[in-house]
Amino acid sequence: MSIRYFEDMVAGQSIELGSYEFTSDSIIAFAREYDPQPMHTDAEQARLSPYGGLIASGWQTAGVYMRLLVDGLLGHTESLGSPGVDQLRWLKPVHPGDVLSARITVLETRPSETRPERGIVRSRGEMVNQDGELVMQVEAVNFFSRRPLGD
Amino acid sequence: MSIRYFEDMVAGQSIELGSYEFTSDSIIAFAREYDPQPMHTDAEQARLSPYGGLIASGWQTAGVYMRLLVDGLLGHTESLGSPGVDQLRWLKPVHPGDVLSARITVLETRPSETRPERGIVRSRGEMVNQDGELVMQVEAVNFFSRRPLGD
Repeated sequence: MSIRYFEDMVAGQSIELGSYEFTSDSIIAFAREYDPQPMHTDAEQARLSPYGGLIASGWQTAGVYMRLLVDGLLGHTESLGSPGVDQLRWLKPVHPGDVLSARITVLETRPSETRPERGIVRSRGEMVNQDGELVMQVEAVNFFSRRPLGD
Repeated sequence: MSIRYFEDMVAGQSIELGSYEFTSDSIIAFAREYDPQPMHTDAEQARLSPYGGLIASGWQTAGVYMRLLVDGLLGHTESLGSPGVDQLRWLKPVHPGDVLSARITVLETRPSETRPERGIVRSRGEMVNQDGELVMQVEAVNFFSRRPLGD
């Protein structure tokens, strides 16, 4: 089934969004710009830290979830943006070589009361590593166009 | 006053964290990697969209908040990471040339019940643009080392 409009999303539905491999280079590049703490930017200092090596910024992990969400779902839908997220949780560290898979589960859908052309979808996003461990989860709200009459 | 340990943070305290100018280049570079939607990656398509031009990914705005938080506070403290955030809200679009200033306000501090060497700080982060408009806010939890005896 192709998911495009608000009406195509149903509470309980889960969608696999693909996977992404974290590398030392991508971890360091992100962190130098957005989270320059030594456990994210300096392999040697990170090795001596309680983490035992480089770990990804949690904000990079959130960004990778967004990337997989765009590639695996949003890019093919009539998406109208997001007002925000809740309960963004970083549950396990992410190391170079880890491959994270993303999944989104629709929690609730409802038409907008103020803007009849859009619907509101609340979802849970999850990122799981190659060992099956949940490393990140987030609850998001997204807006989607309603299906036009005749489509 | 120099803020380093958990004990140096007090509910009600606000700290200015500095500012950051968003450019077309940084907006596009971030979005190509982490949020490849046309309003973030393609100036021409963005011009024809309801936004009237490029806007930054909300995840980049969150990343910039983190960068300012590291440079303006965390990098000088005994920070022990974060389990996550709540109520991350994107309130206004961010355009190229916008200069956002970040501020953190301590909402609550308490010693950890399970790990006596750390304390828990709940905060509100805010990003305000050059017109004084609140464009992003977030509630975060961070862990900090407690002050060692004699320090």
